[in-house]
Amino acid sequence: MTIASTGTTTSEHPTATPLGFGVGARLTASVMTDDYARVLVEILSRLDLTGLVRETGDVSTYLGGHESHLQRALIDLAEELARTEHHATLSLTLSRGCPGEVVCELPGGAGPRGTEVPEPRRTGRYAAAEWSLYPLADQVSEDGTAPDHMRDIYAAIDHARALGTFRGSEHFATRLEGDIGDVIATAVAGWLLVGRSVQHVTSHLTISLNSPSHEVRELAEGAR
Amino acid sequence: MTIASTGTTTSEHPTATPLGFGVGARLTASVMTDDYARVLVEILSRLDLTGLVRETGDVSTYLGGHESHLQRALIDLAEELARTEHHATLSLTLSRGCPGEVVCELPGGAGPRGTEVPEPRRTGRYAAAEWSLYPLADQVSEDGTAPDHMRDIYAAIDHARALGTFRGSEHFATRLEGDIGDVIATAVAGWLLVGRSVQHVTSHLTISLNSPSHEVRELAEGAR
Repeated sequence: MTIASTGTTTSEHPTATPLGFGVGARLTASVMTDDYARVLVEILSRLDLTGLVRETGDVSTYLGGHESHLQRALIDLAEELARTEHHATLSLTLSRGCPGEVVCELPGGAGPRGTEVPEPRRTGRYAAAEWSLYPLADQVSEDGTAPDHMRDIYAAIDHARALGTFRGSEHFATRLEGDIGDVIATAVAGWLLVGRSVQHVTSHLTISLNSPSHEVRELAEGAR
Repeated sequence: MTIASTGTTTSEHPTATPLGFGVGARLTASVMTDDYARVLVEILSRLDLTGLVRETGDVSTYLGGHESHLQRALIDLAEELARTEHHATLSLTLSRGCPGEVVCELPGGAGPRGTEVPEPRRTGRYAAAEWSLYPLADQVSEDGTAPDHMRDIYAAIDHARALGTFRGSEHFATRLEGDIGDVIATAVAGWLLVGRSVQHVTSHLTISLNSPSHEVRELAEGAR
């Protein structure tokens, strides 16, 4: 159903297209103002969705398409939220390798699908975030080896350290801080790095923007 | 570090206590009003945290303790958010079986830890939500069998149908609707049902409260 609705055909190999491989995101943006509806409608109407499909819901908005397009749209959205100067949260779910819903429409071993890690775009705006990364393959991949999840997770954490966004580990999540673009790119990169060896990978990112408790940190960052 | 900070001892079996087994939640509550800070402080200060440990952060708040206490506190919190009549979102991460952070402090096979599924408490308030459930064990359990994730997921979905909250599947998430208490209890129950065969299970739930687009649905529900 997902595959049909995204216009790919069953004759195509599932890794051939991002939508055929179930590459997409769900996002919930919350703006702490009485005027939230107008603010969100304005931001979402301006959002560049080139290369992406969108389905808007009352709980979240689904975006499907190539990871580089998703990263661009998510950074644009978070930057616009930050520019409102309102305190806002952005809750993101990233998924690849499991089109369909309760049951994956792809059998294990249909992937993985390698993709280049897109470069971050800096925004000059600060974000604090909590990040979870889930390699979900529970069967051996095509080459007959079970994926080494911890190796993949460590590669993702090392990448976060390289981007300078890694701030340590908390219960059930990794803390990220820095430029909005770097924070979102860290989650996308980790998702893709694990996706090189695991077909089905999801990642959850909760981003806090313009929090009153961030002012001190932002000054501290500026002073460095 | 997590285990030490929660007062359990290494001589104790990891499944002996909820905190030793890493049972907890992270929650991010967003209230769409300029007055969000006062509203949240009031609600959180009134929250009954009996049996739970709390660590407050700028992105989310961590609660650790027995699943029945977590469910009570999460339903209380969501009900209070709904009673403000403001549009609000509540983003939840549930985790059990992996205390510690980047690396689990428990080896595979230290669990699973069976727990009774707590009964829902009805609130009379409506919630729409998107739910993800992740069995994360990637090694065989103590009895030598690999966990059957799909069997566990189906059991969780069947439980959601039984509670009447299941509304169908969307990309990367299952849609839940109904009384706030039933919606949260559905996610907690699914997390526990999968946890009967899998040591490390996480679940993410994004809840929308008092959304303008919910009014029609609430009337429809009332009419039935």
